[in-house]
Amino acid sequence: MEALKGACIIGQSGGPTSVINASAYGVINTALNNPNITRVLGAEHGIKGILNDRLFDMGKEDPDELKRLLYTPSSALGSCRYKMKDPDKDDTDYKRILEIFKKYDVRYFFYNGGNDSMDTCNKISKYMQKMNYECRVMGVPKTIDNDLFGTDHCPGYGSAAKYIATSCMEVFNDCHVYDTGEICIIEIMGRHAGWLTAASAIATSMGCGPDLIYLPEIPFDMDTFLDDVEAIYKQKGYCMVAVSEGVHYADGSFVSNAKTSATDGFGHAQLGGLASLLAFVAADRTHAKVRPIELSLLQRCGAHLASQTDINEAYMAGEAAVNCAVGGITDKMIGFERQYDADGNYVCNVKLLDLADVANEEKKVPLEWITKEGNGIEKEFLDYVMPLIQGEPDIPKYKSLPRYARLQKILIDK
Amino acid sequence: MEALKGACIIGQSGGPTSVINASAYGVINTALNNPNITRVLGAEHGIKGILNDRLFDMGKEDPDELKRLLYTPSSALGSCRYKMKDPDKDDTDYKRILEIFKKYDVRYFFYNGGNDSMDTCNKISKYMQKMNYECRVMGVPKTIDNDLFGTDHCPGYGSAAKYIATSCMEVFNDCHVYDTGEICIIEIMGRHAGWLTAASAIATSMGCGPDLIYLPEIPFDMDTFLDDVEAIYKQKGYCMVAVSEGVHYADGSFVSNAKTSATDGFGHAQLGGLASLLAFVAADRTHAKVRPIELSLLQRCGAHLASQTDINEAYMAGEAAVNCAVGGITDKMIGFERQYDADGNYVCNVKLLDLADVANEEKKVPLEWITKEGNGIEKEFLDYVMPLIQGEPDIPKYKSLPRYARLQKILIDK
Repeated sequence: MEALKGACIIGQSGGPTSVINASAYGVINTALNNPNITRVLGAEHGIKGILNDRLFDMGKEDPDELKRLLYTPSSALGSCRYKMKDPDKDDTDYKRILEIFKKYDVRYFFYNGGNDSMDTCNKISKYMQKMNYECRVMGVPKTIDNDLFGTDHCPGYGSAAKYIATSCMEVFNDCHVYDTGEICIIEIMGRHAGWLTAASAIATSMGCGPDLIYLPEIPFDMDTFLDDVEAIYKQKGYCMVAVSEGVHYADGSFVSNAKTSATDGFGHAQLGGLASLLAFVAADRTHAKVRPIELSLLQRCGAHLASQTDINEAYMAGEAAVNCAVGGITDKMIGFERQYDADGNYVCNVKLLDLADVANEEKKVPLEWITKEGNGIEKEFLDYVMPLIQGEPDIPKYKSLPRYARLQKILIDK
Repeated sequence: MEALKGACIIGQSGGPTSVINASAYGVINTALNNPNITRVLGAEHGIKGILNDRLFDMGKEDPDELKRLLYTPSSALGSCRYKMKDPDKDDTDYKRILEIFKKYDVRYFFYNGGNDSMDTCNKISKYMQKMNYECRVMGVPKTIDNDLFGTDHCPGYGSAAKYIATSCMEVFNDCHVYDTGEICIIEIMGRHAGWLTAASAIATSMGCGPDLIYLPEIPFDMDTFLDDVEAIYKQKGYCMVAVSEGVHYADGSFVSNAKTSATDGFGHAQLGGLASLLAFVAADRTHAKVRPIELSLLQRCGAHLASQTDINEAYMAGEAAVNCAVGGITDKMIGFERQYDADGNYVCNVKLLDLADVANEEKKVPLEWITKEGNGIEKEFLDYVMPLIQGEPDIPKYKSLPRYARLQKILIDK
C-alpha cells in the first residue's frame, strides 16, 4: 500500500486528566518525526478548533516545552464538550470539518478523549468515507473514570487512583489523631462506575483507609448505610467511609439529590453535596462528630501524585495511534491489554478496538470485585489496580513549584 | 550549674500538620542521645496522656521507624484539644500532672502545639515552680496557620503553603480547559489570620493562580466582592478566587454563617460552606458556570507535598528545645528568626520566646502586604514565603504509596 502523506490534527476533548498531555505528546512527538505526516496541527478546544479554523502549528513549538507536556495536567490545547449530531439529520458540522480537512490536506485525525469523543471520531470517519475523502481516524483513550469499553484500563485512571489512595491514607491519619472519635465521609468522583471510589481500598489495604466503600454499581440503601456506619463507630470509635458521587437508590435516583427528613435547625431540609448529606444523617443517627470531605477536581488534576506507569502508557497510546494510522489502520481506538511476564511482572500491550464498539458504552466494576455486603472491595480489584499506580515521575520544578509546558500556540498559516 | 538528670515527656496538641512528627522526632532523637535524660516518654493524646498515665517508652521504638516520623503527617502520638483551667481556680489537673511527674521522675516537659498549647506549658511550668518541683518546660511551635506571636514563621506552615500553591496551579489549569468560561471559588483554611490563603498568591506569581484573594484581615463586603468578580469575568471570561474560611463582615460576623437573599429554587435560603455560598451569589450576579472548591483538611495532612525546608526546621525546633532545656533554659518557646547570608541565601536561626508572651496571641498578615484594593497580595509576602516552601523530601514509599512510621507504642513500666 502506498504511504498516505498529509497533515494531521490532534484534538483533546472532555474532562481533563493528569496525563492527557502525555498522550498529546505521544501523538505530536511521533507525528513530528514521521516522514508521512507533513504538518502537525493542534486543534484549539477540540472539535471546536476545527470548526472555527483555529489550529496551532505544533512544529513551531520548542521541543523541550513539548516534552514537559508529560508532566503537565489538564488539556494543554484546550478541551470541549461538544456532542456531534447524527450526520443523516444535520451534516452542517461535518461539511465544515471536511472543508477544513481539504484546506490543510489533513489525512490523519487523532482525537483524545472518553466515550463521547470516540463517538465523535466514529461519526467523522464514517462521513469522510461516505464523501470519499481519505482520512485515517484514530481515537486515543482518556478518562479518570476508567469506564471505556474493551480496554483493560484507561490513561488517566492510574494517576487518579494513586491520588485517591494517598489522600485517603493522609485523611485517615488526620481523622484519628484525637481520642474523641469521628465519622469521616469522603466523596469521590464517578457518576456511573465505581473505579475511582474503589481505589480508596488501596489505602485500606495499607492499614489506613476507609472501613466502608460504596460504589454506584450497588443500589444504595440509607438504612443499611446508617446501620453499617453505626456498627463500625460503636466498635472502633471511628468510621471512615468512601462513597461515589454517583450512588443511587434502587429506583435510579441519585442519593445526592435527595432530601432527607432531617432538618438543619432552621426547618430546612438538608441539601448539598453527597458527603455533607451523609455526614448529616450519620450525625443524626450516632451523635458523633462528623467530617465530610469532597476530593473534588483535584482527583483529576493532581499531577504531583501522578503514576509514572500511567504517564508512560498515556504516551504509548498517542504514539501507537500515529504509528498504526500511518501503517494503514483507521476507525480504531487504542486500547490496553495486560500480561504478566515470566517473572510475574505487569506488562501493558496495545490493542485495537472498533470505534463503533467503544462509543457510548460504559464499563463498570465487576460485581464479583465488590463484597457481598456491598460495602467493601475484594482482593481481585487490588491485584488489578496496583500495577497501574506504580512509579514516581521526576516532575520538572521551578522554585519547588511545578514547571508546566509553555506552548506558544501559533496559529497555522492559512 | 549541675546537670539536671531525669526523664522527659513529649506531648502533641491541637490540629495536626504534615511536619508535626518531624518536631517530635527532633525531641525524641535528641533526648534519646542525651546522657542527662534518663527516659523518653511519649504522652498519648497530649496532656490527656499524662492525666491518664498513658505514656509510651520511646526508647523501645525501632530507630528506623522513628526516623520515618520525618515524613509521617498527623500527630503520631495522638493529639488533644484540652484547655487547662487557671490553677488558682481549679488545680485538680495540675496536682495530677505533678503526681505523674514525680512518679516517673520527669524533669523535662516538651509540648508541641500552637498558642493554646503554649498556654498549657506556661500554666504547668508556673505551677511546678510554685510547688518547688524542678522541671524544665519548653514549647515546640506548631501550626499551619502561621499565627504564633514572635516567631518569623511556624513549623507546618511552609508545607501547607506549598500544598495550597501547587493545588491552586493545578486547579487553575483545570478550570481553563473549556472555552465556555468559569468562576472558581477556592476556600482555604484560616479563621483569623490569612497566611494560608495568601499562599495562593504564589500560584498567581507563576501565572496560574487566583485573580482575587480575600483574607480575614480585611473586612469583607459582598457588593465589592461581586463587583470584583464580575469585572474580572467580563474582562477574561474566567475568574479564580481564593478566600479564607474566616472572612467576616465589618460587624465581625463570619460570611460563611450568613444567609443570603438568594434561594435555591426550593425557596430555602442557601446555606453551607463559604465556597458554595460565594459561588451561588456569583452565579446569581454573572450567570456564569461556577465551581466551588474546598481544600479541606488535605491542606494540613498533604505530606506528599511537604517542604523539605519545613521538615528540617520542624526537626530543628524539637532538637533545640531539648538542647536548650538540658542547657538550663525553661519557660520558653522555640521560635525562628530569618537571616540572609552574604550570598543572599535564606538562613533560619533559633530564638527563644517567653511562653507567657506567646500564649493566646495571634499574629496576622501585615496590612502592608495586602493590596489597597483589599483583594490581592503584595510582593513582600512572596519574598517572605518562597524560602519556606523550598525542597522536595525523599518520601519513603512502599509500592508507590507513603510508608509511614509504625510505632509500637509500648506503655512505660509503671
